[in-house]
Amino acid sequence: MARRFLLPSAIFFFCFTASAQDLAEQYQPTADKLIDAALADNDGYNRLAYLCYRIGNRLSGSAALDRAIAWSVEQMKAAGLSNVRTIPVKVPHWVRGSESARMVEPLDKPLHMLGLGMSVATPPGGITAPVVAVSDFDELQQLGRDNVKGKIVLYNEVYHGYGPTVVYRRAGPSRAAALGAVAVLVRSVTPLAMQIPHTGELDYQDDAPRIPAAAVSPEDAIMIARLCAGGVPVRVHLEMSAHMEPDADSANVIGEIPGREHPEEVVVIGGHIDSWDVGQGAQDDGGSIMACLQAVALMKKLGLEPRRTIRVAFWVNEENGGRGGEAYRDFVGDRINDQVAAIEMDGGAETPVGFGAVVDQPSLDLLRQAARLLERIGATEITTGGGGEDIAPLMRDGVPGLAERTTGAHYFDWHHTEADTLDKITLDDFRKNTAALAVMSYVLADMPGRLTPADGVRRTR
Amino acid sequence: MARRFLLPSAIFFFCFTASAQDLAEQYQPTADKLIDAALADNDGYNRLAYLCYRIGNRLSGSAALDRAIAWSVEQMKAAGLSNVRTIPVKVPHWVRGSESARMVEPLDKPLHMLGLGMSVATPPGGITAPVVAVSDFDELQQLGRDNVKGKIVLYNEVYHGYGPTVVYRRAGPSRAAALGAVAVLVRSVTPLAMQIPHTGELDYQDDAPRIPAAAVSPEDAIMIARLCAGGVPVRVHLEMSAHMEPDADSANVIGEIPGREHPEEVVVIGGHIDSWDVGQGAQDDGGSIMACLQAVALMKKLGLEPRRTIRVAFWVNEENGGRGGEAYRDFVGDRINDQVAAIEMDGGAETPVGFGAVVDQPSLDLLRQAARLLERIGATEITTGGGGEDIAPLMRDGVPGLAERTTGAHYFDWHHTEADTLDKITLDDFRKNTAALAVMSYVLADMPGRLTPADGVRRTR
Repeated sequence: MARRFLLPSAIFFFCFTASAQDLAEQYQPTADKLIDAALADNDGYNRLAYLCYRIGNRLSGSAALDRAIAWSVEQMKAAGLSNVRTIPVKVPHWVRGSESARMVEPLDKPLHMLGLGMSVATPPGGITAPVVAVSDFDELQQLGRDNVKGKIVLYNEVYHGYGPTVVYRRAGPSRAAALGAVAVLVRSVTPLAMQIPHTGELDYQDDAPRIPAAAVSPEDAIMIARLCAGGVPVRVHLEMSAHMEPDADSANVIGEIPGREHPEEVVVIGGHIDSWDVGQGAQDDGGSIMACLQAVALMKKLGLEPRRTIRVAFWVNEENGGRGGEAYRDFVGDRINDQVAAIEMDGGAETPVGFGAVVDQPSLDLLRQAARLLERIGATEITTGGGGEDIAPLMRDGVPGLAERTTGAHYFDWHHTEADTLDKITLDDFRKNTAALAVMSYVLADMPGRLTPADGVRRTR
Repeated sequence: MARRFLLPSAIFFFCFTASAQDLAEQYQPTADKLIDAALADNDGYNRLAYLCYRIGNRLSGSAALDRAIAWSVEQMKAAGLSNVRTIPVKVPHWVRGSESARMVEPLDKPLHMLGLGMSVATPPGGITAPVVAVSDFDELQQLGRDNVKGKIVLYNEVYHGYGPTVVYRRAGPSRAAALGAVAVLVRSVTPLAMQIPHTGELDYQDDAPRIPAAAVSPEDAIMIARLCAGGVPVRVHLEMSAHMEPDADSANVIGEIPGREHPEEVVVIGGHIDSWDVGQGAQDDGGSIMACLQAVALMKKLGLEPRRTIRVAFWVNEENGGRGGEAYRDFVGDRINDQVAAIEMDGGAETPVGFGAVVDQPSLDLLRQAARLLERIGATEITTGGGGEDIAPLMRDGVPGLAERTTGAHYFDWHHTEADTLDKITLDDFRKNTAALAVMSYVLADMPGRLTPADGVRRTR
């Protein structure tokens, strides 16, 4: 996930006719069938293995993404879903090209780097410049233009949670450029130092020059910062050929189990099909889309037909543009009031713990009752906050949003790296995530009532 | 450490005139002075930082090793040690050269590899061949020559402790070559999968062709093995230009605090100055040699003069030959009976827990009393087994050997990789290791009695 979207401020209420106890009692047999099926399932994990090992990572605009989309259409059809189709999306097409960085003073030493997504290139032949290291933006401002101009700025921000730390990756390049820096290095945004760089998107501001920027491993950042702190001059050579191609044709992929009573009303469940161009996009976000697909495939296999339509969506371009989510909102158009709920999974497929949702207290209590159906797999937590980049456009217009949540014990060890690979997702965790998604989406799609926002008004366009 | 030397079988007895209680009582004030000094010390860690960041990794035969040796002589002199000198050692000079591996079928994908130390090169242009994956030697034998000939063998042995797993890295190449394999890939010997390969030495046998061999990341090994298990043909292209240069001139470095009563009797304390040609050789073994030096430097600073000589030794070529340890044995020559004890530290500089030693039960009890002096830093464990590659030649000839031990919680996450860097050693742990080494070596050098082997006879050459 790109994790720009963290805590939507909109608050919705849960309106529901049956009592919580009724809900749990009514759905326990169906929930158990779904959980039994998920915990015995191999098809979902085998699909994930194919995505990771035979298709691989899949950045917007890449040939691998095209293959992933075509393959996903086949897989949804093979799972027996209805109305399988693609929704065309024009996506930004950033190409990393060749890249490298070396410390050339006081010692010649290759650095462990990955250019930041959407970065510009260095001039041909690269940039060689002295490095100034800062721990945060305050230190940068204290240095001022005189000490930053012509330099490469290293942000050696210690990881203290993804949200507070990732601002250096996003805003750091333009903040340094505004003071005359020629390039930026960012300590990888991760709690684990294993000499592996973590990429991710930067956000250039219009009022500063666009300068090349790359992530370096925590080890390299710590080394350079210590040398600088000791008064040792450090110079780095950075060479990047990153560039933008014209926007590329791409697509969201969707498929459905049509509702038996209200086919026009939709619970959408999904994650993003694109990934960064490193690793295999397993935790981010292949495991999620494969678990969502398998959750619905198991309903189909069990002959379950919920009251409303359940739609699986593989959104595109979550990582560097969010255009898939916007295109999906456009696709929904004026049928926005029929979107009963949107569940996004984009925090990895470690052991599931429950769901995050943005609802008031009585509705949270109601969801907690529903989550009791997941006691067997320990995914009973309902917390406030939720949603995600892909369903943000829906939530903005009043659709209740949920996020599937896991322990997230190691997610940011692997996030946006070569180490985001299939082996990081255990079969057991994958099955539990499938079970959690299947039960929650089925209940939301089948229960007599439906979720409505706090003020009772859908904010349609 | 190369970790060929694990549990020496020789058993020695501790002969000591004073009671255990006397020992603890007698040395507590001196031990506390040493511990106080070590826990407040910055000089040792600053030296380690210089070694890691300004000299870097230092494989036998490399220019960096020459710099490390010359710098170590300076540092021992600056610390006030006496008789600082180098002991010439001819070392093997293996050069990695350029190297790479790609999976070319079913998908074109670079692999995360490091050639194994002492491997031969591939033919110019590399080798492209189908891969057969095995979990262990039994599976290899079951495949037989018909299924191995002309193939690249992948050992996908799951890590189950370093000793049992490293045999695939050491013996795997020749075992596969004997069945006609053209190259070998070995899953990195580590409990942690972070897409980083771990190098280390292989052992070619005389009765099999010498074929090129490389470590791959656990992730790549798991991927290839899963593809093979699913019947998917996998082909890999391996290209390595590794080669041997003529043996190079190198050296052990030693320095001393001469004993006040028996300067001819020596307690030697050290680790190895060479490292693999990746990372910074911080945990393996820079932290150890810098802690040993600082332990003795602090005695000097405090004006402590033990009864016998304490000698610091930085042995060379531990990783791929063990010639430093052998040269040191030759240097000792017929003065072997004067070697009171040898303490090696080569298991990293995580939090110290105590020492391993090969002595009988009464002597273990005595050492445990001595180790009570280290209660303040929690390093009171005395266990059976100890020694190490560098002091093995001394122990073989009857010198009592000890190994400083730590928690080793993450040692094999970093071992022989790019991630073996300064940041993996905390200042606090470095200080505690310095304290443990200082107290134990001082007591062994100062106590009235001395260690003797079980049979009371030194096995001199």
